[in-house]
Amino acid sequence: MTKMFALIVAGGSGTRMNRSTPKQFLELAGRPVLMYTFEAFHRFDSSIEFILVLPADEHERWKDLCAKFDFLITHRLANGGITRFESVKNGLALLPDEGIVFIHDGVRPLVSGQTLQNCLDTTIRKGNALPVVPVSESLRFVDETRNQAVDRSNYYLVQTPQTFNTKEIKAAYRQTYSQLFTDDASVLENLGNTIHIVAGNRENIKITYPEDLHLASILIENKL
Amino acid sequence: MTKMFALIVAGGSGTRMNRSTPKQFLELAGRPVLMYTFEAFHRFDSSIEFILVLPADEHERWKDLCAKFDFLITHRLANGGITRFESVKNGLALLPDEGIVFIHDGVRPLVSGQTLQNCLDTTIRKGNALPVVPVSESLRFVDETRNQAVDRSNYYLVQTPQTFNTKEIKAAYRQTYSQLFTDDASVLENLGNTIHIVAGNRENIKITYPEDLHLASILIENKL
Repeated sequence: MTKMFALIVAGGSGTRMNRSTPKQFLELAGRPVLMYTFEAFHRFDSSIEFILVLPADEHERWKDLCAKFDFLITHRLANGGITRFESVKNGLALLPDEGIVFIHDGVRPLVSGQTLQNCLDTTIRKGNALPVVPVSESLRFVDETRNQAVDRSNYYLVQTPQTFNTKEIKAAYRQTYSQLFTDDASVLENLGNTIHIVAGNRENIKITYPEDLHLASILIENKL
Repeated sequence: MTKMFALIVAGGSGTRMNRSTPKQFLELAGRPVLMYTFEAFHRFDSSIEFILVLPADEHERWKDLCAKFDFLITHRLANGGITRFESVKNGLALLPDEGIVFIHDGVRPLVSGQTLQNCLDTTIRKGNALPVVPVSESLRFVDETRNQAVDRSNYYLVQTPQTFNTKEIKAAYRQTYSQLFTDDASVLENLGNTIHIVAGNRENIKITYPEDLHLASILIENKL
């Protein structure tokens, strides 16, 4: 049985939320967002081992929250870096070469068991998996010189967990950082690997703006 | 005072919802989606005049629903066409040249008053308005030959109501249909007009998939 790891990345400072509390600590239905995220993986398979990447100066706050909320899912901590790339790299350093790793945004508490299953199955068969959903809105490109409609039919919104064989993704993260690395899949892709897309779930939103937190609260309260 | 019109487009057949009921008639918290959509505009300004574009063979069903649910917002009906372009054109034919028209998807019941205000203000000042939200996920382009990450920072998800001076948008819809017309703004843009983007609201989702209906139900129940 292949060992599974969830590398939960929570390096955000929360500036887009206009709040002083980093968004991963904001409360959803009374508890920090991050705890729901852990639980989504733990429900899927309780043998998954967790690494949580948090800014070093937030470790104490997180430990206090775990105590306060009786949060019992075992996990190791890694230090966040200045970039997401560095944060993921720090987390990967704690993993063995054998295994499968789900690299997941701490602020996506609503990932479904089906999405996790899709990621796992395709990683076992093909080596990696990237959960996506179709763009259901019209899409527009706007910059200083262009402002034009884009045909959405070939575009997909990329979610997490982006899922890999640990050995391959660790090797990919040995590359020098490039601005082309917009997510974990793009880091592996830069080595020439093919990325395999699978169906994500539309509720698996990334909590980025205050409205997202409101939406996620409602979803959590109605589901759990 | 400029006259305002809401042209509600509900031509969809609901195939992506895997149901035989067209999605605009599906029930949200006990009432058809379309009724909530009307009410969002009516709450914003009760002087708005409504045109509803529905497939001709659905007019009777809609009238029965209005009777059943005591739906009292006055509106005129226009016939849906084979394409969305044709549907909008049929609706525009009922409008005078003077005025402002909000062209809105029938299956977006969660448009906010703030979004409507943004659209109205910018149309008064600049002639048109397109509500958008930033893409908060990574974006990927996938077709038969390419599968690659895309920098999302210049991409926006386009919502409705796309808002125009009636005279200008009617003139634009006199063009021959082109596959480049992905939405109403792109029809006007094809004449060389500049499109003005404004902030939409993230909850203003288009009900396209069964999960969207579930999400919208929850949002409606928690708001209204």
